[in-house]
Amino acid sequence: MGQAVTVLGLGAMGLGMARSLMRGGFNVVGCDISATAMARFRSVDGRVIEQPARAVSGSQVVVCVVVNAAQIEDVLFGAGGVAAEMTSDCVFVACSTMAPDFVRRLAAKVEATGCHYLDAPISGGTVRAAEGKLTIMASGSAAAFERADAALNAMAAKVYRLGDAAGAGAAIKMINQHLAGIHIAAAAEAMVFAAKQGLDLARVYEVITASAGNSWMFENRVPHIVSGDYAPHSAVEIFIKDMGIVQDMARAAHYPTPLAAAALQMYLAAAAAGMRGEDDAAVAKVYAQLSNTRLPGMD
Amino acid sequence: MGQAVTVLGLGAMGLGMARSLMRGGFNVVGCDISATAMARFRSVDGRVIEQPARAVSGSQVVVCVVVNAAQIEDVLFGAGGVAAEMTSDCVFVACSTMAPDFVRRLAAKVEATGCHYLDAPISGGTVRAAEGKLTIMASGSAAAFERADAALNAMAAKVYRLGDAAGAGAAIKMINQHLAGIHIAAAAEAMVFAAKQGLDLARVYEVITASAGNSWMFENRVPHIVSGDYAPHSAVEIFIKDMGIVQDMARAAHYPTPLAAAALQMYLAAAAAGMRGEDDAAVAKVYAQLSNTRLPGMD
Repeated sequence: MGQAVTVLGLGAMGLGMARSLMRGGFNVVGCDISATAMARFRSVDGRVIEQPARAVSGSQVVVCVVVNAAQIEDVLFGAGGVAAEMTSDCVFVACSTMAPDFVRRLAAKVEATGCHYLDAPISGGTVRAAEGKLTIMASGSAAAFERADAALNAMAAKVYRLGDAAGAGAAIKMINQHLAGIHIAAAAEAMVFAAKQGLDLARVYEVITASAGNSWMFENRVPHIVSGDYAPHSAVEIFIKDMGIVQDMARAAHYPTPLAAAALQMYLAAAAAGMRGEDDAAVAKVYAQLSNTRLPGMD
Repeated sequence: MGQAVTVLGLGAMGLGMARSLMRGGFNVVGCDISATAMARFRSVDGRVIEQPARAVSGSQVVVCVVVNAAQIEDVLFGAGGVAAEMTSDCVFVACSTMAPDFVRRLAAKVEATGCHYLDAPISGGTVRAAEGKLTIMASGSAAAFERADAALNAMAAKVYRLGDAAGAGAAIKMINQHLAGIHIAAAAEAMVFAAKQGLDLARVYEVITASAGNSWMFENRVPHIVSGDYAPHSAVEIFIKDMGIVQDMARAAHYPTPLAAAALQMYLAAAAAGMRGEDDAAVAKVYAQLSNTRLPGMD
């Protein structure tokens, strides 16, 4: 039996990562506050332990895939009580998208307990999480990398080593989200404008994905607009969170971000219109409503 | 000897297209208002005729690659006098980026002279123009396509046939420019923010181009920022023109474009700071100046 690994957070990303670790021969325990998420992991032969503090006991690697900074703080030092129960010398692998300054403070607190901290945000979406083919943007001490190495390789196709201190991974992940958040809103803005002009959206998609106007997000999200299917792959509220972090960072640094600021307003408008739980491509419906344009799937 | 083709406009794109036509066996004549551009075409064995009206005389295909709508109007119906001299039944292939409504009016005027009009904006940049590997977003009558077909294939790797009337090609090209113009400004906004945080820009480029934050423009333009080289491949003023057309179209249609509007402001700021002739990636220097951030190549 391989290394003992605990996965905290069994949502769409965490579930796939836990299963990738199981396939890799690790001795995996999963834990989530949601009974549904726990049942889903159990149904694929995952072993679950209900209390986070008990779930990490004895593990050499703790992979944390909760939604945001508040949850990770609570899991470690609040109600979750994980920090007090982690095995000495183990590594805490933090995969959530968080502000770099928060990550640096969190890492210092974890390291003060005698454990190691790896700043390890992820990119790639749920499909690649399930395949064990994520991109991980990691930074941390040599000791943290050494202890997490095998688990990272089981979850990721590509592990970037971005420095020897926590914070660099988080910073590059935020640059990625800054761009991704703009590109989704831009795709919506341009595609609804195309619809308003009466263009065939499938044809526009075909031409743009072969032209200089293409982006990873355009290619990935515009099919949701063309088919009128806004079942959430990644929800509007995720980018409200992530673009919010970008704006907090930019404001603190006195750095102007007119494009990111404009994009965030569109996600907020989508949430205000009741779409916070829909796919982030639903921002297209905001443009459609604002401009009285008909999109596929709209009555 | 193949079809007689005249190329009006021998700039960076037109020159490459004229040479591709020569390689394809066409009987090519070139014409430009700039003596320098004419001399450059002559130096690669191109045949030039100085007056546009004389240059199109006897040609079956006229490929027009001038900068904007005002120039094309002037070439056809103003000082250029081309419309009056075009051979009856020839095809006028209009490659400039222009508003769809303007293109429809122009096509009607050309067709009234007994010639055919092909709405044929191009994408791909100067390197692919020289290689004969452009993307052409074309719409027009069957007669226009039939007469232009061989010449299009000599200039392009991919010819999209987007409809049987002028305007559809222009509309999709504007959607492409809408996205491209946002993506360049977004790349600048995010990369300067990365620089302000002290991140290694070459490393950020490496990670982002392999992640969901990537775009065609990020991949193509960010190397200019990383190397601090703003020699123009495509100048700031081109996107002032193209995003200006997007804004004109959007205003006329009562369509809100907060992202395109924000991006245009950044190109205007770059021009205001004296960079209108520099590469469009120079918008990064505006962000750097606004935020007191040092970029590669800045003193």
